[in-house]
Amino acid sequence: MDTKAKFKTKDLTLEDLQVGQTFRSPDYAVDAEQIKSFANQFDPQPFHLDEEQASNTFFGELVASGWHTAAITMRLLVSSAPVLGGLIGAGGEISWPRPTRPGDTLHVESEVVEIKPSKSRPDRGTVTIRSITRDQAGNAVQVLTAKLVVPRCNPDTNQ
Amino acid sequence: MDTKAKFKTKDLTLEDLQVGQTFRSPDYAVDAEQIKSFANQFDPQPFHLDEEQASNTFFGELVASGWHTAAITMRLLVSSAPVLGGLIGAGGEISWPRPTRPGDTLHVESEVVEIKPSKSRPDRGTVTIRSITRDQAGNAVQVLTAKLVVPRCNPDTNQ
Repeated sequence: MDTKAKFKTKDLTLEDLQVGQTFRSPDYAVDAEQIKSFANQFDPQPFHLDEEQASNTFFGELVASGWHTAAITMRLLVSSAPVLGGLIGAGGEISWPRPTRPGDTLHVESEVVEIKPSKSRPDRGTVTIRSITRDQAGNAVQVLTAKLVVPRCNPDTNQ
Repeated sequence: MDTKAKFKTKDLTLEDLQVGQTFRSPDYAVDAEQIKSFANQFDPQPFHLDEEQASNTFFGELVASGWHTAAITMRLLVSSAPVLGGLIGAGGEISWPRPTRPGDTLHVESEVVEIKPSKSRPDRGTVTIRSITRDQAGNAVQVLTAKLVVPRCNPDTNQ
């Protein structure tokens, strides 16, 4: 009996993933209003709130909060890396090589870099995924290397 | 002449910071509506969207997106760690030891862990700050170790 049969084909388990496997997200258009709205709620600093105030800052122009870029990235990951039970992150490393700007259209390119079945819990494992968020010109605005908790279908196999 | 005099006292520069220095943020109350609203926009998964759907998931209850916890943490950092020119993060490491739940009241405890003047740019440096976001019981819901770009006031001093 194939135990995978009970899950929808889109729900990936640890056994379905391979190091080197890639996922590409849809596109997401970012405008000034979204940038200011997020900043008002979560990162109220001049370079995220107002074009004129931003011109006198480190960035010299209105740019998105890095946490806004991170949130958009999560939105795109949810629709591009379907894991059984959901995308459950334990943590990771994040960097913002350059800021997201108004008018940018972002997408995320993800790659599986490590798969580790849990030694103590045979029903799950940890998958490390590197997700690069790029603008329309291909520039990286965020690099996220995240550890996800992923369920196993066949705890007895030697995956 | 004290060059610091031209800056408001609340605007910290590299010279004002010391390893071991701590900052505590104000409190921030999180409710179910905020959790669902953030999730609808950025992390639309059952355990972040709806109490009933959440009961059948890994978490067993409604919990906040880790990126929501990160965004709230940024909001609290902006009001508790005033750096000249703003809090400008290059990146860092993030982990979520446990999720934020509806009804939690969060605050952030930050500590300066490293200060590195830039070798190539005498007007700035990198400061590493570890920020632990805690709930009302003191449990850590997020640990963030972030690298910030911080301006120097006195590039000639041996800070």
